[in-house]
Amino acid sequence: MNNYISKKADIGSNVIFGSNIVINDNVKIGDNAQIGSYSEIGHPCKKEGTTIIGSNTKINSHSIVYSSVNIGDNCRIGHRVLIREETNIKSNSQIGSYSDLEGFINIDEYVKVHSNVHIGQFSTVKSFSWLFPYCILTNDPTPPSNFLEGPIINEFAIVATRSTLLPSVSIGFGSFVGANSLVNRDVPMETIASGNPLIIKGNISRIKLPKTKKSAYPWALRYENNFYPKDLSKRYEVLRAKYF
Amino acid sequence: MNNYISKKADIGSNVIFGSNIVINDNVKIGDNAQIGSYSEIGHPCKKEGTTIIGSNTKINSHSIVYSSVNIGDNCRIGHRVLIREETNIKSNSQIGSYSDLEGFINIDEYVKVHSNVHIGQFSTVKSFSWLFPYCILTNDPTPPSNFLEGPIINEFAIVATRSTLLPSVSIGFGSFVGANSLVNRDVPMETIASGNPLIIKGNISRIKLPKTKKSAYPWALRYENNFYPKDLSKRYEVLRAKYF
Amino acid sequence: MNNYISKKADIGSNVIFGSNIVINDNVKIGDNAQIGSYSEIGHPCKKEGTTIIGSNTKINSHSIVYSSVNIGDNCRIGHRVLIREETNIKSNSQIGSYSDLEGFINIDEYVKVHSNVHIGQFSTVKSFSWLFPYCILTNDPTPPSNFLEGPIINEFAIVATRSTLLPSVSIGFGSFVGANSLVNRDVPMETIASGNPLIIKGNISRIKLPKTKKSAYPWALRYENNFYPKDLSKRYEVLRAKYF
Repeated sequence: MNNYISKKADIGSNVIFGSNIVINDNVKIGDNAQIGSYSEIGHPCKKEGTTIIGSNTKINSHSIVYSSVNIGDNCRIGHRVLIREETNIKSNSQIGSYSDLEGFINIDEYVKVHSNVHIGQFSTVKSFSWLFPYCILTNDPTPPSNFLEGPIINEFAIVATRSTLLPSVSIGFGSFVGANSLVNRDVPMETIASGNPLIIKGNISRIKLPKTKKSAYPWALRYENNFYPKDLSKRYEVLRAKYF
Repeated sequence: MNNYISKKADIGSNVIFGSNIVINDNVKIGDNAQIGSYSEIGHPCKKEGTTIIGSNTKINSHSIVYSSVNIGDNCRIGHRVLIREETNIKSNSQIGSYSDLEGFINIDEYVKVHSNVHIGQFSTVKSFSWLFPYCILTNDPTPPSNFLEGPIINEFAIVATRSTLLPSVSIGFGSFVGANSLVNRDVPMETIASGNPLIIKGNISRIKLPKTKKSAYPWALRYENNFYPKDLSKRYEVLRAKYF
Repeated sequence: MNNYISKKADIGSNVIFGSNIVINDNVKIGDNAQIGSYSEIGHPCKKEGTTIIGSNTKINSHSIVYSSVNIGDNCRIGHRVLIREETNIKSNSQIGSYSDLEGFINIDEYVKVHSNVHIGQFSTVKSFSWLFPYCILTNDPTPPSNFLEGPIINEFAIVATRSTLLPSVSIGFGSFVGANSLVNRDVPMETIASGNPLIIKGNISRIKLPKTKKSAYPWALRYENNFYPKDLSKRYEVLRAKYF
């Protein structure tokens, strides 16, 4: 229905299109991918590279993906997402509705970015981490400037709703940043940090599940979701070992 | 103009459509409703129920309403609103532009949700309450988990700009939550609460109007707007009596 | 591609249109302007005046500009921007993606509004100032009410990410408001203010550049961007002299 699909685009088999879609030149879409209505893929910009949408990846309606973006297989991209140039999202990751990826961003596999997250340029989000709604990753210590450096979110970290990460900070492996925090320095691995000013509150095992009173973290040892590989807890231990 | 309207949809009389609209199967639109351009109604999802748009309800452009959503009569839905499955919005309510209703939400009549409000699943918003811009209603005490419970906003409550409500909290009848608050526990009825950490600051009558120095709250006793029924102050007293 | 352009609209030469665009009556678009896909210009509302889009101005995709809006020359409007009635944006200004201008707003020349900024009605943003992502300008001291008055941002001011400005506050010429601040009173000129509650932290020269340890502010004396006129630092001094 009213779709414009460039003849120069390379479209896989069984791709499902909504209505009123624009697919520009130099776009490659894998098999069984889905593109929602009112979305534009390969939006022209200064970076002229190919945009790749992986197999089985679903992009929901009203989204914009710039040229020179690479999205892996089995990803889920929400409604009204903006993904700007030179962004790489590896397979099995999810980006929530209204999220704004400003470009030059690396997102590893199995990352979950919730709704309305703002990721500034030159940020890194490693595998199995979570960014909850309205988190902001900033990149300019003295705005405005031309020396931009975004935060690094390490594997299995949790950044709760509406946290603001100042430029260059690192969130440690498996750590937990509480809601509404202003993160102005590095958070060590497997550590709770929250508030403004930020307070370090000890090991993540101190947060208990409301019902069982067992430790809620590391979350990978108790959370079940078909989205993840079955050996999730083992992957936690393997990746954790890298830090020792 | 370039509209797709399913033959299985049930469209009332005098419905006004913008351009580039998608109306899917199993959608029922009441008389005199308006659907803005680039909107999709009855977006397919796992919940296959009918989506109902009430009479005289206006949905502005670029909005998405999932299947199994029920919106009452005389509602106003802003631009770029996302309303996911199993959400019920009763008559005469308003949802502001950019707001994200994540599904399984109950919104009563005469509710005013402003722009860019994020309402997590399993939240309840009762009649005549207000949620101001960028409020977030969360639902997961130990993210990620599968035990989700959203907040309850009671009647005539005011939640000012950019407040974050933690899971399961209750905002009392007629209470006032100040801008930028982090609500981590229940707020009693007709009470001022604000800040992070949250501080209870006394009865709502303590907030004065800037010019007359009379009490600004209960707001229903002094606010006029054609949007409300004429007996607004009486309704306040009647609903208030329920809590004694 | 699937564009609706009213015959009553006045379209300049070399205007570039995307796809699925709606241009309503009483719209005037200057030479060399660009209108992105899925955008609607001159969206009907109670204010029936002409909407003017200046020459060389680019409006990105999924944006909505109401009737009675005036946007100057050489402006850049992001994706999914909402600009409501009686808003004036002077030449050479930029409005970031997802930003919501609620109407009755004055934005002077060379203003930079980043992504997802919410500007309430009756706000004033003066030339060469910056509003970073997720800033909110509020306008109602006792919500809900009908006495609305927005903030004033003076020239060369910086308001960092996620700051909330309460109604009627004034941010002084060249001042710096830190990230996540709640601004509940006026900030004098060339002053650092941050936090919640807001703390005045001295003259802007106290913030140093990370590498050179020289003063980062006034930013206009060290920041280079082709977007600005070449005599930026001189303009700073000339405008500054107005305040003495």
